[in-house]
Amino acid sequence: MAAVRQARTGGGDAEAGQDAVETARRHLVQPWPMAGSVGAEARALIGEGDGIYITDGNGKRLIDGPAGMWCINVGHRREELAKVMYDQAMQLSYNTPWYTMNAPSAELARRIADHAPGDLSHVFYTTGGSSAVETALRFMQFYNNVRGRPEKKLILSRGGAYHGSTYLAASLNGRPRDRDWMDGADDLVVKLSSPDPFRRPKGMDVAAFADMLVAEFRDRIAEIGAERIGAFVGEPVQASGGVILPPDGYLKRIRAICRDNDILFISDEVVTAFGRLGHVFASGEVFGIDPDMITFAKGVTSGYFPLGGVVISERLLEELRRSNHPDAMFAHGLTYTSHPVGCAVALKNLDILEDEVLAHARAVAPYFQARLKTLEELPLVGEVRGLGLMACVECVADRESKNPLQLDRAVGVRIDAHCHELGLLVRPLINMCVMSPPLTISREQIDDMVAILREGISRTMEDLRREGLWQG
Amino acid sequence: MAAVRQARTGGGDAEAGQDAVETARRHLVQPWPMAGSVGAEARALIGEGDGIYITDGNGKRLIDGPAGMWCINVGHRREELAKVMYDQAMQLSYNTPWYTMNAPSAELARRIADHAPGDLSHVFYTTGGSSAVETALRFMQFYNNVRGRPEKKLILSRGGAYHGSTYLAASLNGRPRDRDWMDGADDLVVKLSSPDPFRRPKGMDVAAFADMLVAEFRDRIAEIGAERIGAFVGEPVQASGGVILPPDGYLKRIRAICRDNDILFISDEVVTAFGRLGHVFASGEVFGIDPDMITFAKGVTSGYFPLGGVVISERLLEELRRSNHPDAMFAHGLTYTSHPVGCAVALKNLDILEDEVLAHARAVAPYFQARLKTLEELPLVGEVRGLGLMACVECVADRESKNPLQLDRAVGVRIDAHCHELGLLVRPLINMCVMSPPLTISREQIDDMVAILREGISRTMEDLRREGLWQG
Repeated sequence: MAAVRQARTGGGDAEAGQDAVETARRHLVQPWPMAGSVGAEARALIGEGDGIYITDGNGKRLIDGPAGMWCINVGHRREELAKVMYDQAMQLSYNTPWYTMNAPSAELARRIADHAPGDLSHVFYTTGGSSAVETALRFMQFYNNVRGRPEKKLILSRGGAYHGSTYLAASLNGRPRDRDWMDGADDLVVKLSSPDPFRRPKGMDVAAFADMLVAEFRDRIAEIGAERIGAFVGEPVQASGGVILPPDGYLKRIRAICRDNDILFISDEVVTAFGRLGHVFASGEVFGIDPDMITFAKGVTSGYFPLGGVVISERLLEELRRSNHPDAMFAHGLTYTSHPVGCAVALKNLDILEDEVLAHARAVAPYFQARLKTLEELPLVGEVRGLGLMACVECVADRESKNPLQLDRAVGVRIDAHCHELGLLVRPLINMCVMSPPLTISREQIDDMVAILREGISRTMEDLRREGLWQG
Repeated sequence: MAAVRQARTGGGDAEAGQDAVETARRHLVQPWPMAGSVGAEARALIGEGDGIYITDGNGKRLIDGPAGMWCINVGHRREELAKVMYDQAMQLSYNTPWYTMNAPSAELARRIADHAPGDLSHVFYTTGGSSAVETALRFMQFYNNVRGRPEKKLILSRGGAYHGSTYLAASLNGRPRDRDWMDGADDLVVKLSSPDPFRRPKGMDVAAFADMLVAEFRDRIAEIGAERIGAFVGEPVQASGGVILPPDGYLKRIRAICRDNDILFISDEVVTAFGRLGHVFASGEVFGIDPDMITFAKGVTSGYFPLGGVVISERLLEELRRSNHPDAMFAHGLTYTSHPVGCAVALKNLDILEDEVLAHARAVAPYFQARLKTLEELPLVGEVRGLGLMACVECVADRESKNPLQLDRAVGVRIDAHCHELGLLVRPLINMCVMSPPLTISREQIDDMVAILREGISRTMEDLRREGLWQG
């Protein structure tokens, strides 16, 4: 029993850690596995979290560079959040949202609506980002069915996008490799170019690139017909695609075109909401747009509890209420929609964000970006870009070609391995390293993080030179 | 601030309750709303849970007839579960499953595999039933892509089925009204008859009905071609369809046909697993079948935390590992896959099930079914059916026609309203009431539940007679 307890909690016990690794190999399927090792692999065991740090199975403390998966916004081991989970579970751990409701979900919806831009007044809750995007898309389909235009359903998405891992949401994904072996609803989705200034056509300036993207958007609508297009779905900053910041003004112009063509603008803020860019929502406060729907997840509970949702425009709901089909049922909802514990955690998390963390994130962001930017001194680094507390260090063979290095093992994985040794967990993305630490990170901790990353990249450069894989 | 605290926790405070109701009307979209009232409705406010009881906003205590949504298997206010949430959140509240892992998820996978039938050895975790079904289906697609038969993807499903509320999972749903206003991937799904003996063709006995269902299954495969069919997905007992118990031997015969035709048999045990039928999994222990995959959710955490998953056959994983495409990536996984808090809650919940609750559920089930069966004395009741601790009371206009009553307001809703007054929350399903209380329910509490239901149905009969809607 003692052994079991140790195995459960992880921690620094090496023997228990080895048990967990063996057990994982025998019984766990990890997310995003390769066919050759599916159900036969273990990953780095993490036993503890505290503030911006996690501790691995060998007792090694690491800066949590990706904040879990862009989600531990207020940091690990927040006792207020652990306590509210306990308290709410003892008060009411669950109620069916089919016939009943609970107070925390209503109160959280009010507070989320207060932060949302435009007329976004109502919240539908889910269990994460994928189900939030599914909800927004199924709502669009329902809305157009009720409004008597069932042919208006196509979805505009972009290269570099990541919107989730359920069938329809995943169909929108536009990153390389996401779709190689996976099926998707290709007949429902129209793909547009990624708004990635770093990889814009050679010789074109960023303003011209923005014009090109906007022209493509208009042209595709004209070509397909606005009467066949239901929604545009986009991340304000493409996150998993490599922290792609669109050109200035691009989002406002796309938003206006959507409005002119009665195409719903769905802003996927699963990563950017709840503090990553210094505000509860970035659509209005950072980019000056008022979408028809905003999807959120991750930071809403700082990852302590699976919760996500969609904030929906009052106008859309009013149109449905006034339609000729009052009995049309939006046959959609999850068992864990409006979960009382999740909503209670989110309320407390929002208190923490409002009281301390948002202001700190805004204050420290310029320092975070400036320190990371110094890594452009390293010849392997093609660009460091970012906003708020999210950034990407993109490695290239050389700055002229901007070609990502084609290696036996992705360069991001190599950097991550060195950084793990040095005390930093990196999020490797092929040739990129994404940095999105807990928002509570201090200036001193930023210095540590950047110093380790610099050393990890330097060691990788040495390895690549020694192995004859790169001559930078 | 005090007002906010009250509003958050609900409880019996009438003023705070009224606030929550108003706030919900202004800011919440409830699941499965009607267009005419979407974003402008409140539902019965629930403030507290304890054992098999919940307390509404007026301080009225109710038996939780549906156990939330078939999920509060070990009962409300289990301090062990609240405590493990606190403890695990303080130890490690989250780690990214993309590059790292945690001990509770590995240990839980081992224990789940120990309970699973056949060679089901590995677990992939999700956040609930919909994402579990999406995972099983996307895995089937990936598996057939890697095995070089991309045309083998059609999914067999049945009338009366309920498999979730994301686009692809919802496409399998076969209940009336679920799809009236909703889109689905109809070209990927083949629908078969519901195995509902109560609504079998007139004059046919149940054995002949089973033969008919099996013949239909074979015929559709022959017609379409097994080489185009990837999977059959079925609930062993169709739950939300009205607790449909298939004829004896039906599941074994369907399982054999699937094996003969290399069609994956996916047993959707989101409702039936973790104790509802007295065992951790019902596929093997109750129905004698060994599926290729089993989906689970709900009872795995007794609803305290959104967790679900798929148990996958070792054979399928081994085939992938030995394929000619070791680098093929199963590009699938959720932020909250393998959530450490969810897995820790599930481990403790499984302790409770193994130590106390499963044996109790098996012991009390015959009494539960026998007591409910006495409701067939009431002329409005067409049939009471069930297994383990799930049952359905189906109302009909008369037993000859078996027609559900066509009323201004569904008869289930009328019964629920009376029962709420009398101290029981019912799960009304059009003309049916589903009973699936916490598995900890005692004989005395079963007596209370059935007495209230009897009185609620009796009052409904009186209402219907008085309103001239029914002459039974």
